[in-house]
Amino acid sequence: MATQGEDHPYVPRDMKLPGYVPVILSQSTILSVYGVASLLVVSFMWILSGRFRKISKVDRLLMCWWIFTGLTHIILEGYFVFSPEFYKKKTPHYLAEVWKEYSKGDSRYAGRDSGVVAVEGITAVLEGPACLLAVYAIATKKSYSYILQVAISLGQLYGTAVYFLTSVLDGDDFAASTYYYYAYYVFANGWWVLIPTIIVIRCWKKICAACEVLEQKKTKTR
Amino acid sequence: MATQGEDHPYVPRDMKLPGYVPVILSQSTILSVYGVASLLVVSFMWILSGRFRKISKVDRLLMCWWIFTGLTHIILEGYFVFSPEFYKKKTPHYLAEVWKEYSKGDSRYAGRDSGVVAVEGITAVLEGPACLLAVYAIATKKSYSYILQVAISLGQLYGTAVYFLTSVLDGDDFAASTYYYYAYYVFANGWWVLIPTIIVIRCWKKICAACEVLEQKKTKTR
Repeated sequence: MATQGEDHPYVPRDMKLPGYVPVILSQSTILSVYGVASLLVVSFMWILSGRFRKISKVDRLLMCWWIFTGLTHIILEGYFVFSPEFYKKKTPHYLAEVWKEYSKGDSRYAGRDSGVVAVEGITAVLEGPACLLAVYAIATKKSYSYILQVAISLGQLYGTAVYFLTSVLDGDDFAASTYYYYAYYVFANGWWVLIPTIIVIRCWKKICAACEVLEQKKTKTR
Repeated sequence: MATQGEDHPYVPRDMKLPGYVPVILSQSTILSVYGVASLLVVSFMWILSGRFRKISKVDRLLMCWWIFTGLTHIILEGYFVFSPEFYKKKTPHYLAEVWKEYSKGDSRYAGRDSGVVAVEGITAVLEGPACLLAVYAIATKKSYSYILQVAISLGQLYGTAVYFLTSVLDGDDFAASTYYYYAYYVFANGWWVLIPTIIVIRCWKKICAACEVLEQKKTKTR
């Protein structure tokens, strides 16, 4: 039980993780739990949002996205941020297993890279709750709904940019294999590039249209 | 001329900077050049913006801020991003001197920390040009003026948050002295927390007001 420095599946192989306990749950179990839980949350939100009056299908879809991404930020990423020793967890602690598994795609998680922790910290603590606020803002048609969605989405894009850039600058060699590189590091994070980009474009246009109207109204009043 | 690992004024003392050439210009010279150049740019913008019709004093001040911060991002930070070996520069190359001097407040610049380079890269390449676009957007009263200003300011805030958080996570010990810590690391960066925060609040309110008006208009039309 002395140093177990290399008894882990991660790259770089010489990364020291004393006390590392191997992942117990299978990949399919870990993904299924996340998938089913997310599906339940999204279904719940879709049904609930249908009971509000005059909410468009697009807005209902957005509410589903915001509750899903918000809970992912708060629960999954929040656990990572405040559990520096997750890789030592012995019982099949689901959240620890998630990060042990994900670290195969990016070992900077197990290695506690400061760039990754900083981005995940901002995401979990600020953006997570803001996502839940976005659900409420869309449901109740608040005037800050669009700008809030732009703000969170830009934050997600900025975070992902820092996440990928720091990896490239540090040699882009943190995945246990090509499979994990593409499945976890590229594919999983890709959604947080694609969807925020679409949301920023949509809300940006809405805000511009609103500002245009306000400007015309001002000009008329003069 | 072999290894000059410890022949530099930065902390941590054991940081390796082979080929380091000491800063030649005095602190007052470096600051004066930046100060005078900034003052010239800001004065130029203040006078120029006065020639546009119907631009409020607040908008003129904002144009001054955007040209100042935009050029700082593009020229100063852009130089840093694309000059990994600035600390080896022998002639009194002004931009290299700036970063040699600033590294006394945060040696991660000379040490090329990936978090710092990633944030500075996004700032110089994306936010810098966007700041110049903001000057144009305010001058020509574009409908995207407010949302653009929010987007850049949130980017500046996110970048500063990552910048400070990674430092804390890595031990917050990168300044050559308490003086440099407060003067360069805290005070200089503080402006990029204070001013973007004020701008976000202002533009956020304007956007909410515009969205409110658009919503009322929609309701009336129905």
